[in-house]
Amino acid sequence: MEEKYTELKAILAEVDDLQKASSILSWDQQANMPSGGAEARGYQLATISSIAHEKFTAEKVGKLIEDLEPWAAELDPDSNDVRLLKVTKRDYERSTRVPAAMVAEQAQLSAVAHEAWVEARQKADFSIFQPYLEKIVDWNRRYAALFAPYDHVYDPMLDVFEPGMKTVEVQAIFSAIRPKQAELIHAIAEKPQVEDAFLHQHFDKAKQMAFGREIVTALGYDWNRGAEGLVPHPFMTNLGFGDIRINNRVDEEFFNPYLFGAMHETGHALYEQSMGKELARTPLFGGASLGLHESQSRMYENLVGRSKPFWEHYYPRLQEYFASQLGNVSVDEFYKGINKVEPSFIRVEADEATYNMHIMLRLELEIALMDGSLEAKDVPEAWNSRMEEYLGITPPDDAEGCLQDVHWSMGLLGYFSTYALGNLISLQLWEKIEAENPNIYDQIGAGNLAPLLAWLKENVHKHGAKFEPQELVQMVTGSKIDGGPYLAYLNKKFGQIYNL
Amino acid sequence: MEEKYTELKAILAEVDDLQKASSILSWDQQANMPSGGAEARGYQLATISSIAHEKFTAEKVGKLIEDLEPWAAELDPDSNDVRLLKVTKRDYERSTRVPAAMVAEQAQLSAVAHEAWVEARQKADFSIFQPYLEKIVDWNRRYAALFAPYDHVYDPMLDVFEPGMKTVEVQAIFSAIRPKQAELIHAIAEKPQVEDAFLHQHFDKAKQMAFGREIVTALGYDWNRGAEGLVPHPFMTNLGFGDIRINNRVDEEFFNPYLFGAMHETGHALYEQSMGKELARTPLFGGASLGLHESQSRMYENLVGRSKPFWEHYYPRLQEYFASQLGNVSVDEFYKGINKVEPSFIRVEADEATYNMHIMLRLELEIALMDGSLEAKDVPEAWNSRMEEYLGITPPDDAEGCLQDVHWSMGLLGYFSTYALGNLISLQLWEKIEAENPNIYDQIGAGNLAPLLAWLKENVHKHGAKFEPQELVQMVTGSKIDGGPYLAYLNKKFGQIYNL
Repeated sequence: MEEKYTELKAILAEVDDLQKASSILSWDQQANMPSGGAEARGYQLATISSIAHEKFTAEKVGKLIEDLEPWAAELDPDSNDVRLLKVTKRDYERSTRVPAAMVAEQAQLSAVAHEAWVEARQKADFSIFQPYLEKIVDWNRRYAALFAPYDHVYDPMLDVFEPGMKTVEVQAIFSAIRPKQAELIHAIAEKPQVEDAFLHQHFDKAKQMAFGREIVTALGYDWNRGAEGLVPHPFMTNLGFGDIRINNRVDEEFFNPYLFGAMHETGHALYEQSMGKELARTPLFGGASLGLHESQSRMYENLVGRSKPFWEHYYPRLQEYFASQLGNVSVDEFYKGINKVEPSFIRVEADEATYNMHIMLRLELEIALMDGSLEAKDVPEAWNSRMEEYLGITPPDDAEGCLQDVHWSMGLLGYFSTYALGNLISLQLWEKIEAENPNIYDQIGAGNLAPLLAWLKENVHKHGAKFEPQELVQMVTGSKIDGGPYLAYLNKKFGQIYNL
Repeated sequence: MEEKYTELKAILAEVDDLQKASSILSWDQQANMPSGGAEARGYQLATISSIAHEKFTAEKVGKLIEDLEPWAAELDPDSNDVRLLKVTKRDYERSTRVPAAMVAEQAQLSAVAHEAWVEARQKADFSIFQPYLEKIVDWNRRYAALFAPYDHVYDPMLDVFEPGMKTVEVQAIFSAIRPKQAELIHAIAEKPQVEDAFLHQHFDKAKQMAFGREIVTALGYDWNRGAEGLVPHPFMTNLGFGDIRINNRVDEEFFNPYLFGAMHETGHALYEQSMGKELARTPLFGGASLGLHESQSRMYENLVGRSKPFWEHYYPRLQEYFASQLGNVSVDEFYKGINKVEPSFIRVEADEATYNMHIMLRLELEIALMDGSLEAKDVPEAWNSRMEEYLGITPPDDAEGCLQDVHWSMGLLGYFSTYALGNLISLQLWEKIEAENPNIYDQIGAGNLAPLLAWLKENVHKHGAKFEPQELVQMVTGSKIDGGPYLAYLNKKFGQIYNL
């Protein structure tokens, strides 16, 4: 049996090498590739994906899994080996449903769709992207059909990013928080607005990046096993054990995007950098789900990066970098400024109180695209009318509306809700952290970020993808994913800032 | 038959996709990868290479080639299809000769040898590298034996980089030019040296890169189908049709490396950017040989970039960028400075007059290592005595002598002569260009680089790898590779600069 297990692991390692190669090609496409290279890159990605798919879905793999199950039944069910086999079986069953031709088609389609999206967003012209969105929706509906029968046509999409989660669960979680979050936004709108004009000044790119590097280092990011790139749309990517990269953008006229983007991507990166080498080149080497991943990024961006204690420590240093811009702004004014709540068009720039509304909008449109109640051509209108309904504002054009996100251009439907789930999970984890370590914010206020990372590593990171998201959240916090702690946090924090 | 040809091309396209993916991974390794990613990247590259090798050397490929030969015999022998089949057959026969175990051995050996070489060079201690050089020579002799019978034991090495070239041809070419080039170097040494201190000042990185971008653009480089990266050792890389990148380094205390490096790599890049899309994803999509490739890079670096007419046009612009450094240096002084001839230790920094001597030395040592007349342990002594003989100088240590180049440590024997052949070919082509277009230097002096590129595209670039180097040079210039034009060029140019 040990031999069969070794044989299976050797195949999984090769598949992982190919998947990482795809990630490198995709990373490069966003960070460096000239536009003329899109078609060739599409072919390369399609070839690699189809070989990886072919290797992973080979009958031999199915036979090895089957043969190994009795052996695994005798072992600790939470051991790496048993969990590896379980996750492999889940992925194998999912992958063998999808024909190789459809996998290659998706890779090719997303390469050209991404280029079209870049142009469409630049020109604020949805019609350039529309035919690609139609093809992407069509592909996703054909994908979902492979998993029939299902409770909901959107379930197979969601399962890719949140293994085990059902559409109905997500809808229930969101329905419970939407009215209360809307209430909070409304209450804030009645109050005098906080000042944040000082964040909208010229902040030199090199200085922003130098300060950002200090913060990212302080959070615990290991630069020997990572690097920073500049891209149009920030993301973190795992390019192999020891190569976990953060990718960000700089706005020289607005302080927030770069620094909070850096903290966000560092949250993702710390998750991947904390995993042990024993998980490398296996399907367990990654986060439990995108929602879990987002809980880490939002924790570092918001619960650390937009907290008062954090800035009580780091604000004097920031003032040294930007004396003329921030020399006369107090840490209290700065704290309020970076936490300003105001309905806005761009999701990635949204404040904590309005952010989830952006997600709910996207989830509803995706579900409607999938169930056929919405056509791609009507997306801009549907987008704008929901923006009006949820946030009381209408985007001036589609670049600030339905073209703002990269996800659909990469063929990804089912992804967005993970962002909101991440917000909710981050608070469930934080409550647990504070219960076990009531001094956590004192430590942060002293510039000591190590205890936080150690806790996360021990309780979340080290498990990699061994557990499903609901299972892991339950295991760590004692309950399933739930919006209660997040709502309580929002009410307390913004109640203080806005004197509600 | 058309069906079999389509089947063969589909396999070749997949193999090309995998090779390009390897190039992207290697490019990234040099341009971006953190040190912690080295082991994972090694696994990824090994997996991709072995899949590509397995696909290309499959029996099915051999059978398709065999089946298609009668069909090809009826077609135009210079058509893309027939040439593609011929090149594929040559590569297939070469690849299937080498047992997989020897390929793996080479990969393993060069990994450890490279590491030893880095340490040896750092410590200027050849004894650290010597045992690995012995193993590398042994591997190459066993490789050559797989291709017996041969005219010369060095032929199989050379054939990898200059298809069809024989050792005896290269030796004849070099023997003819060596005494005359030595004579020129000696004559220059008797004359007063030109001034070039102004090139060794502080030149701001951003300004160097901005000026370089203007020049690279003027040469005809298409930025929509390329990009520039920064790396420790400059190189050009083809990452797929429409993605041809130049990679360079900046020295802020010496003007030459960045700008002439940029023109050199652009010469390589223009070759690849000019090839038609019909060659993409086939083995014909690339240069005819490394020598032909080097003829293009050296032409742009030297025949354009170190020519008087070029600087008569661009020097005022350069002076605008670097007024304090070059404001008081005349274009004539600048021209002489960038063409200073001085025997030196490091090949990559050598001037046009001495460069080939560095190559001849290496070729002689490689041949002697292969035919057994030189042992690895005697390389430093052989190196130093030839440096004394050819250039009248002795390296202070082996780091500036036989340990300076990376090639041997990567297992590459047979590579070096391509650099000198490139110099010679560049002048053979240039004579032809001037014969057909006597105004070429007037055009360059007017900043019009388009006619040069158009000629190269039509006569050299568009053929890709369809022809063997000797065949292509004969076809374009009417004679085989020959050092005469290069010697005449050196004598004329440096005769003027040094008043010989």
